[in-house]
Amino acid sequence: MKRVDEHLADILGAIRQLPPLELALPESYGGVLAEPVTAPVDLPPFDNSAMDGYAVLAADVAAASETSPVTLAVAGDIAAGDQGAYDIDPGRCARIMTGAPLPAGADAIVPVEWTDGGTAEVTIRRSATPGHYIRRAGEDVTAGTTVLPAGTRLGAAQIGMLAAVGRARVLVRPRPRVAVLSTGTELVEPGEPVGPGQIWDSNSFALTAAVTEAGGVGFRAGSVGDDPREVLATIEERLASADVIITSGGVSMGAYDVVKEVLSGLGTMRFEKVAMRPGKPQGFGLLDDRVPVFTLPGNPVSAYVSFQVFVRPALRALQGLPPEPPRTVRARLTAPVTSPGGLRHYLRAVLSPAEGEHHVAPAEAQGSHQVFALSSSNALIVVPEDVTDLRTGDTVDVLELP
Amino acid sequence: MKRVDEHLADILGAIRQLPPLELALPESYGGVLAEPVTAPVDLPPFDNSAMDGYAVLAADVAAASETSPVTLAVAGDIAAGDQGAYDIDPGRCARIMTGAPLPAGADAIVPVEWTDGGTAEVTIRRSATPGHYIRRAGEDVTAGTTVLPAGTRLGAAQIGMLAAVGRARVLVRPRPRVAVLSTGTELVEPGEPVGPGQIWDSNSFALTAAVTEAGGVGFRAGSVGDDPREVLATIEERLASADVIITSGGVSMGAYDVVKEVLSGLGTMRFEKVAMRPGKPQGFGLLDDRVPVFTLPGNPVSAYVSFQVFVRPALRALQGLPPEPPRTVRARLTAPVTSPGGLRHYLRAVLSPAEGEHHVAPAEAQGSHQVFALSSSNALIVVPEDVTDLRTGDTVDVLELP
Ligand code: NWS
Ligand code: NWS
Repeated sequence: MKRVDEHLADILGAIRQLPPLELALPESYGGVLAEPVTAPVDLPPFDNSAMDGYAVLAADVAAASETSPVTLAVAGDIAAGDQGAYDIDPGRCARIMTGAPLPAGADAIVPVEWTDGGTAEVTIRRSATPGHYIRRAGEDVTAGTTVLPAGTRLGAAQIGMLAAVGRARVLVRPRPRVAVLSTGTELVEPGEPVGPGQIWDSNSFALTAAVTEAGGVGFRAGSVGDDPREVLATIEERLASADVIITSGGVSMGAYDVVKEVLSGLGTMRFEKVAMRPGKPQGFGLLDDRVPVFTLPGNPVSAYVSFQVFVRPALRALQGLPPEPPRTVRARLTAPVTSPGGLRHYLRAVLSPAEGEHHVAPAEAQGSHQVFALSSSNALIVVPEDVTDLRTGDTVDVLELP
Repeated sequence: MKRVDEHLADILGAIRQLPPLELALPESYGGVLAEPVTAPVDLPPFDNSAMDGYAVLAADVAAASETSPVTLAVAGDIAAGDQGAYDIDPGRCARIMTGAPLPAGADAIVPVEWTDGGTAEVTIRRSATPGHYIRRAGEDVTAGTTVLPAGTRLGAAQIGMLAAVGRARVLVRPRPRVAVLSTGTELVEPGEPVGPGQIWDSNSFALTAAVTEAGGVGFRAGSVGDDPREVLATIEERLASADVIITSGGVSMGAYDVVKEVLSGLGTMRFEKVAMRPGKPQGFGLLDDRVPVFTLPGNPVSAYVSFQVFVRPALRALQGLPPEPPRTVRARLTAPVTSPGGLRHYLRAVLSPAEGEHHVAPAEAQGSHQVFALSSSNALIVVPEDVTDLRTGDTVDVLELP
């Protein structure tokens, strides 16, 4: 059997980064910059006021105090957005708002709280030194500076940075679009009645949501039966529009394992047994030389765990991000765990973060069909291949589920 | 000045949970259950096979071994989705696929790997005991069990659980819809040229993305100038469709502080100074008895920090989730920090997580207009009100930015 690390390495070795797209700023959220972004101008673009107050010559107010205030003539108002319309000469000042450009001649700002707030004349009760409450052009960023290197993932703060340098569109590797397909004649849409032998399709819903959680854009390509032509047609239809295809079911040893049947020999598809539990039967390959296809096992817990272990890192690699699994922490077991050895075991568990030391409690129900234990877990305990027995209090690696 | 905790408590005290909506399963992602969900049937609904193989009477194969294999007649095939069509009598078995219902009479599954794979007759080379590779009805969940309590946030695993119990629609407190409005005559849309005194609007883009990061649905209500009628009209227009409104700018001491001007006296709006840096001028209240309105300060770093400290917890409270700020960790300072005291200081910083001990390096540029430092940070150091000096190596609270 293939090791988990080997299978992941093969997947990542086959993944090429998505071609960059030019997207409007709001749509670029979650994308990864495919160009370095530089500031076209200084930020701030001009010297401006950090306060609502008066733009003065510091020399004029150097002696101002509560007991001997200074009175200056007010030339007028400068609001944010105005051009620096006034020249400040000795004895004169301008009322100025936060963010408004510093008028020529002025070299300090006196906040309105230190004054009587006058509009024709103003009385100032405290002194200010040159530069006081002035934000200088370029003190955030100078023109030409790279504010965001290529490879930056765009979160809210980075979107703000792009807007601040005037970018309305930006070249990014977009969030991957992932089509998710369930296979199985036994599957019924939730909301419809189930007959004998039937169950509701859960994988296509869970995996589509998992794609969102991993930073992609998931869409359900629905649930198809075990008819080879229908399965192949559905996959082929998605090849043009999806960046990734995920299927669930139909890959083990059965006489009706339709996914394996229709995809074997296509593109670089390979079907393998990976030394892990759950998640043993795995398939992966590129179709049309381009689209990574993951054929995950049908058992719902197996499909979910396989997603976190293989698909999530691959989605990140498509964007050029480090191909990490979910965040890993160390935690102490609150109960013993046994593992067959020779395979990597992922156990559903509840992690209780605590300062200093986390604790993790394995769920009782560890069957790959037991979705209740999964849906009430927040973590996966990772038992390495060479470990068979862990005791209460032992420290283990734990993947935090999103 | 008001303390941060007091202001947050006032906000949370005013927030009422959003009314529940019935949403289709894929749209419910990120919502919070407003009903407990129970299983209408057992899961699995019927005894079924965990393996591709043969459904047998354990007694028939009790003596099977490599050296003395047992041969049974194969009554036919049972695929997943089939009804249990055959009765298994002594000497007979049925070929069965993973997930297919166990036929009457059978009490064990022999995997195909232990057999010659025959279809009319099959030769079995290993013994099996009763219950072997059978998944019993109800061993995941019994009918009537609450699988997800009200108050559960719906991530991928929970969406899977809902589908598994057949739910196509579900009652949730949805992700809050948040309208984000920038105010300021100086603001220009990114992509347009800036003239003297003008800057590009960044807050409306950054805050809209921050809403998404916090689990809401953000939409830009655009950028308006300092015209009171226009500002008020834009806010009123959004009251009907938004669950929350966020404005930026126009709330400090200026003669043109339009947001404060138009909203003062409306609903429960209050404008206050909060003892924090950045983020001193804050406004909050309910309009129309229903819609929380946050008027954040215009400086981009102030708006962003205020969002994390006040708006994010409030968005969570609207869904009935614990009103937490971003995840807090403890880390050691790599450089000294001074703070004015009497206010809570949030410093932009780079957190380097490490096993055992995290390190955090404060950015040099801590001005509330310095977006470059923010966009290259991943954390906020929190310096409490009563602390003025911290030294290299001191341990501090750090908010991890999303
Ligand atoms: N002889 C032999 N038999 C074997 C194995 C082997 O080594 N040898 N390996 C195991 C393992 S070992 Mo594991 O990961 O370590 O737990 S998965 C695994 C499994 C993979 O089988 P596969 O062909 O992928 O899936 P199938 O379509 O058969 O479904 C599998 C189950 O999942 C349900 N299911 C499907 N789709 C959905 C959906 N959308 N929503 C909800 N449930 C769904 C479906 O009803 C069925 O109960 O086969 C087993 N059989
Ligand atoms: N006398 C006195 N004056 C004071 C204070 C005081 O105590 N006394 N307090 C301080 C503090 S103290 Mo701080 O949080 O601790 O750093 S904010 C703060 C500030 C809040 O002022 P406000 O009225 O909210 O905002 P305005 O519209 O004036 O803009 C503010 C800045 O932000 C820019 N800006 C606006 N919108 C956007 C946008 N969408 N995109 C990009 N930039 C934008 C805009 O150009 C301008 O430079 O006033 C100060 N002035």
